[in-house]
Order: sequence, then structure tokens, then C-alpha cells
Amino acid sequence: MLEQFIYFCKMNFSSKLLEDAVNEFSKLPGVGQKTALRLVLHLLGREKEEVTHFGNSIIRLRQEIKHCTVCHNISDLDVCEICRSNKREKEVICVVEDTRDVMAIENTSQYFGAYHVLGGLISPMDGIGPSDLFIDSLVQRVATTEVKEIILALSATMEGDTTIFYLYKKLKDFQVPITTIARGIAFGGELEYADEITLGRSIVTRVPYETAMK
Amino acid sequence: MLEQFIYFCKMNFSSKLLEDAVNEFSKLPGVGQKTALRLVLHLLGREKEEVTHFGNSIIRLRQEIKHCTVCHNISDLDVCEICRSNKREKEVICVVEDTRDVMAIENTSQYFGAYHVLGGLISPMDGIGPSDLFIDSLVQRVATTEVKEIILALSATMEGDTTIFYLYKKLKDFQVPITTIARGIAFGGELEYADEITLGRSIVTRVPYETAMK
Repeated sequence: MLEQFIYFCKMNFSSKLLEDAVNEFSKLPGVGQKTALRLVLHLLGREKEEVTHFGNSIIRLRQEIKHCTVCHNISDLDVCEICRSNKREKEVICVVEDTRDVMAIENTSQYFGAYHVLGGLISPMDGIGPSDLFIDSLVQRVATTEVKEIILALSATMEGDTTIFYLYKKLKDFQVPITTIARGIAFGGELEYADEITLGRSIVTRVPYETAMK
Repeated sequence: MLEQFIYFCKMNFSSKLLEDAVNEFSKLPGVGQKTALRLVLHLLGREKEEVTHFGNSIIRLRQEIKHCTVCHNISDLDVCEICRSNKREKEVICVVEDTRDVMAIENTSQYFGAYHVLGGLISPMDGIGPSDLFIDSLVQRVATTEVKEIILALSATMEGDTTIFYLYKKLKDFQVPITTIARGIAFGGELEYADEITLGRSIVTRVPYETAMK
């Protein structure tokens, strides 16, 4: 195909509908005009019903999806499945950044408590302050329900650490144990390639072999 | 984010709507489950009206788009803009694989004739034979209208060459000049990295300097 010629200039679309769809696709993160055109031409080659279903699933997603009123995770109902389940230990709250982290932790099958989705991390660089996140509702939740432990499972980045520090200050007066997930050398990680901070912290926070074996 | 944990196991979606949208996105070429989830979460953060417009643009694209009855290019009307224009030289037909190639050639601003979109290339490996392409309608067009030149602008691949050979056999009896676009060293290309076939052909088909200057 001669399409590689396209990239250096504006595209000449033969159809308004085509142009519209390509423009919409290229608003997605990581999708440029060329990729958008490829996706749109792919859709044109698919069955009408399939493509209509695709379009409707996008519209319904945005219009009908809800956020759990307890933990703010994405949900089809007002209260999500985890918050409704009576098999989960509601007194343990794992605080995460977004729904992807809930999915990641659920996939480990190692956690049986509840969640609290913040909806982001404190990041002054991006203009995100504590009031933009679901921090007040977390404080409310800890104040009004019985909580045995708060696990802060946030990313090990500057924003994550800032958020952890802010949450710690807000929550420490409730006399509830606050923990963070362990930082250290990942499984399969080689010591010689680990950065000094990680390696240093993993020595300081070393655990008895019997604990690590579990 | 902890999302990198996800990739090795099935995703646990907290919502059916979310799962449905992620599955639909991951049917697109080059989009896996993780990318699909990223795109869907991006859409959830956008305005409702914007996302509805996106969904509708996809549905309308597939349901309302037409192919020009003359050249088979994608079009909003029964006959495309190029075929309707009286500024274009209708007696010259440039035969291309698909609409992307039309866009690429239009972008060069060097061609002022009409097009004929084949809709693919002959490729026995993929089960695409001459009858799957708009070849008969091209022969019809050459037989019934006045044609001064047929330019075969197909990719320099095995499939492209096969298609060119097939078209040549079908069209040669009409006494119309048949040309192919020039093969050679691309602009910015260095001789030492060019393959032998391209370099060899570019020596055999060398052009007078005055012609190359134009």
C-alpha cells in the first residue's frame, strides 16, 4: 500500500462519515490519524450488526455505568458486588487509585476484604488536589463503620507517596492500624539490577523466612 | 498503578457494561485486553455527549456509508466527488488497491484523473481471487467509456505484481496504454542500503535527467 505517504500531510477524506469516525477514534489516547483510519476501515469490513453493537456498547457504557456508593468502584448497580457480598471482610479496607488496581488485586486471589477507590492520586503537577479524590468519603467511612485495618495499596511513585502521607495524616487519629503493601525486589528480579532505594528498603524491612514462605 | 499484574490472567470485571465495552474494543486489530481497558476507562472520563457522539459516528459510518458506483471508492453519495467533478480527466484511470491509496495519491497533488478501487489484491494465500475484486467492473468501464490511459498504482509486492499481471492480460486487447508507477530508490534513500532488485531495476529503467528534473 502507498499509505505511508499520508503521514506528512493532512488527510483528504472522500467521505464526511469516514472523516468523522477517524477524528473520533484519533481522540483516544495513543491513537493517531493513521491508526484511526486503519481501525475505521477495519470496521467497514465487519458485519453491520457487529459494528452497531460496538457503537451501542460505547454509548451504554458511558450512560448507564455507575460508581458504587460505598467504595466508588465501577459497577452496574448502586452498590458493587464486592460491597454487597457477605463473604468479604468489610472491616478491612484496601485503598487503591482506580478500578484497574481493584482488578489487579482481585486477580491475585489473595485479598478478601473491601476496597476504596480514590479515583486518582494527589498530583499538584496535574492540578489534582485532595478534594478531587474520594478522600472525604473514606474518612467518613472509617469514622462511621467498624474498621479493623486500612491497607494503602498505592503506586510507589512520588504521587503515590504523597497521597499515602496525606491519608496517613487524615486517618491516624482513628486508632485503626494503617498498613502499606510491601515494597521490595519483585519475583524474578535480579539484585544487581535493582535500584539502591528499593534494595536498601528491602534490607531494612526484611521478614523472617517463615513469614516469607507462607 | 498495579495494573501490570493483570496481563497473565483473565480479567475480573466489576461491571458487565465495562466488560462488554472492553471485549468490543479488543476485537479491533492491534488492540489487546489491556489497551482496550485503557481506552474504555478514558471514555468513562469524557463527557457523556462526546462519548455518545463517538458511538453514533461508528454506527452511522457502517450503516450509511456508500461505495461510488463508478470507481468503488468510499463515498457519502452514490457517485463520489472525484467521479462527479468536471475538473478531473475522466479518460485517465488510476487503479489502486483501496481507499487509503486514493488518499495517498490525492495528497501528492500530482494526479488529476479518475480512480478505480479494486478493494484488495489477488492473493491465493488469503483466498482472494479475481472475482472477489472489482476487476470485471474495471473491464466494463474500459470497454464502455473512452479511456486514454490506465495507470496501475499497486504495491510492489508479490500480490501487487500478480494483480498487475492479471489486469494487464484482461486489458491489453482494448488498445489503451497501460502504465505502472515508477519503481526505484525512494527520496532520501541511500544506495548502499537498497536491495539488489530495486537498484537493478532502477538502473535498467533510468530516465533522462531532464525528465527527472520536472
